[in-house]
Amino acid sequence: MSALSSLPPALASLSTDLTITDSDIIAGYLRDESRFTEAGTPLAVLAPRTTDEVATCLRACHEAGIPMSTRGAGSGLSGGANAVDGGVVLTLHRMNTVVEIDRANRLAVVQPGVITCDLRAAVAEHGLYYPPDPGSVDFCSIGGNVSTNAGGMCCVKYGVTGDFVLGLECVLADGRIMRTGRRTRKGTAGYDLTGLLVGSEGTLAVITEVTVRLLPAPGQPHTLVASFPTLDGAGQAVAAIVDAGITPSMLEILDRTTVQAVDSMTRMGIGDDTAALLLVQHDGVDAPDVLAEVEQHCAGHGADVVVSSDPTEADMLLEARRQALPALERLGDWLLDDVCVPCSRITELIAAIEGIAQRTGLTIGVFGHAGDGNLHPTVIYDKTDPASRDAALEAFDAITQKALDLGGTITGEHGVGRLKTEWLRREQDPVNMQIHHLVKQALDPTGILNPGAVLLAQA
Amino acid sequence: MSALSSLPPALASLSTDLTITDSDIIAGYLRDESRFTEAGTPLAVLAPRTTDEVATCLRACHEAGIPMSTRGAGSGLSGGANAVDGGVVLTLHRMNTVVEIDRANRLAVVQPGVITCDLRAAVAEHGLYYPPDPGSVDFCSIGGNVSTNAGGMCCVKYGVTGDFVLGLECVLADGRIMRTGRRTRKGTAGYDLTGLLVGSEGTLAVITEVTVRLLPAPGQPHTLVASFPTLDGAGQAVAAIVDAGITPSMLEILDRTTVQAVDSMTRMGIGDDTAALLLVQHDGVDAPDVLAEVEQHCAGHGADVVVSSDPTEADMLLEARRQALPALERLGDWLLDDVCVPCSRITELIAAIEGIAQRTGLTIGVFGHAGDGNLHPTVIYDKTDPASRDAALEAFDAITQKALDLGGTITGEHGVGRLKTEWLRREQDPVNMQIHHLVKQALDPTGILNPGAVLLAQA
Repeated sequence: MSALSSLPPALASLSTDLTITDSDIIAGYLRDESRFTEAGTPLAVLAPRTTDEVATCLRACHEAGIPMSTRGAGSGLSGGANAVDGGVVLTLHRMNTVVEIDRANRLAVVQPGVITCDLRAAVAEHGLYYPPDPGSVDFCSIGGNVSTNAGGMCCVKYGVTGDFVLGLECVLADGRIMRTGRRTRKGTAGYDLTGLLVGSEGTLAVITEVTVRLLPAPGQPHTLVASFPTLDGAGQAVAAIVDAGITPSMLEILDRTTVQAVDSMTRMGIGDDTAALLLVQHDGVDAPDVLAEVEQHCAGHGADVVVSSDPTEADMLLEARRQALPALERLGDWLLDDVCVPCSRITELIAAIEGIAQRTGLTIGVFGHAGDGNLHPTVIYDKTDPASRDAALEAFDAITQKALDLGGTITGEHGVGRLKTEWLRREQDPVNMQIHHLVKQALDPTGILNPGAVLLAQA
Repeated sequence: MSALSSLPPALASLSTDLTITDSDIIAGYLRDESRFTEAGTPLAVLAPRTTDEVATCLRACHEAGIPMSTRGAGSGLSGGANAVDGGVVLTLHRMNTVVEIDRANRLAVVQPGVITCDLRAAVAEHGLYYPPDPGSVDFCSIGGNVSTNAGGMCCVKYGVTGDFVLGLECVLADGRIMRTGRRTRKGTAGYDLTGLLVGSEGTLAVITEVTVRLLPAPGQPHTLVASFPTLDGAGQAVAAIVDAGITPSMLEILDRTTVQAVDSMTRMGIGDDTAALLLVQHDGVDAPDVLAEVEQHCAGHGADVVVSSDPTEADMLLEARRQALPALERLGDWLLDDVCVPCSRITELIAAIEGIAQRTGLTIGVFGHAGDGNLHPTVIYDKTDPASRDAALEAFDAITQKALDLGGTITGEHGVGRLKTEWLRREQDPVNMQIHHLVKQALDPTGILNPGAVLLAQA
């Protein structure tokens, strides 16, 4: 009660059931999983259960000028959910209901706190499929996925989170509730405010309900793993697959550093002569034919190839991909990047990163979504050593710059957050950034929504 | 020259090569193909050849406060390209170059005046596929497609125009040039300004270049036509197809009125006992299996079914769909609507429209995209008869209201234009409309871009 009584009146007037001021509990809500991002000390954590409660929280913060960071599961990797000094953290984990599954119209309505894998499981019971599968699918939330326009391994065939969002309910900065979008497959009635909110990382509104499009359940995928003696061979195989008009449902790459880290952890015996590993799945009725063609392209570029249609065996084949980040984490502290380049440039990017690793003296493992050019270079450093930290940041910057130089983007699926605000200004032209600020002003005129994320104070 | 000298100085100072003031020529640029929309008398038509010339035109109009309607091919059906009194019409038909086709990264860069079928043909030469295929595909432009987020028959499998737009170059109201988006498959660097501009119908910026995502060329489609003795049978067959998890590459419906109109024009002999016609295509490697399954669902609901894998025969089978609007046009003046409802409600909508036709004493043919619930009820009336005009508007309103009542939207693919500005306010909540106006103000503070389209003067 003493903590509560020290709150500004606007917050103190909120139901105590909504408001968490215990500093031990607050400590768990200060930041997401990113590195090198700032997190402040909030006054309180607010945990609403309904849209009306979210509106109440926003009205209070708006009137008192209290900044708000919104948080889903806190699994973000760019600092988008980090707390702000003197602000509040709004956590949506209590709003975790799958409101509706409409099989006839292939859609679902969900609250933002629903864990992504729970939505996937719920719709699977109706023979339906929600494709987006970020690496954090087992613990991230739909609201966070929408806010960052999250991707995953499915994107090469199915697209990203935003491709599945039909409509939203949200609460604006001043507490007003707004609906956007529709329940129909098509619609062009007015501006695409749904699309504007997707990927806006809590800076324009708080999303309180999401209507997602679903697909029929796909077939059981067939799986292929190809071990290449050279990086160029893997790159040429990817190019050949694309050139042949093949769109597999998964096309992942692991570089030599990552393969060796996985091998040293798991003793799989894949590390010795492997310069790059491709992992490919296809879930169409033509899976056997498609993977036979993929196998030819891989073998033609020098790879050893294993193919399986057995789910258990496929699961084992994918283990190397699943263990990529855990294996790299064992090597030290990690700084995970997320850049996306045109597919044809991925081997150039990986080769450049090898050079950056040599120059900075750091280990950098690269893995990610070769099928759409979205890679996750992972810089290993020692956070207790200032020189190592500096080197990690230097490597991170060099990688991000290289992605831009190759015609790519600074973030494929993690978002800008607080990690890449400076980089956003390098990617987008000054006029584009000015329009960003005008849009922000239009929706959040007093700037209380997630200040410091996406946009810097000045255009 | 006398016409030019009567122009305001801002326009008179533009290169005469850009400026058309001959009233006979201007007459061809006054409006699109919509009915019941207002078109004013412009001062001039401006026909730039480059982005810089577009910027010059906008700077001139911005400084002098001259409103501008932007026009692609003028094939729109909602009045979005109509001229405004005292304004200019900016026509982009001279900017009609396919700038780049990048096969390795499956993308193309095109100017807005490129005719949609020309882009489709150009990329097909590289073994690639640009799916969006509005009914006007042979004469509409990519810029217009992007501005209205146009659809077509492909959408049930492939999605709408916006699903293929990766990035844009545009000119803002004050003449500044802005780039949005990217060339990569994925990207979440900042707000989705690309998506905001898609479907904004020339009210937020003038689009001067479009980067589109492409797909590998699909297989030769197999085609099925099913003639149903009852409307309910057709609706139940569509529901059964969806329920079976089938996503064909085309799933079109024609109602009894449309079938009879087609039959009376073409003497195909399909009209007598047909209450509804379904036309289905599938272009996957599994086309034979999928269409066999579709055939079962159709036959199970009482249909006579014809299937063909032969392209020439398929072309003949689709003739009824192609002739739907021409056949209805023969019956009188027409007012073409564009509503979209959840797929499960299409027979309810069609049945309601039969009732509306009886009540108003008008012929109303319904055809469209059953697979995504996007139908085009076409009201036949006599424009020389005020009572018939009133009845047509009454029917149009009743149909649009019914679509909203069924959980649908006022426009699936034609856009709001000047035809449905009042209806937009009925579909969207007041807060949503206020945000529309704030976004409009942010991008076009003096309101010169296409005034009267999408938004009414006041929220």
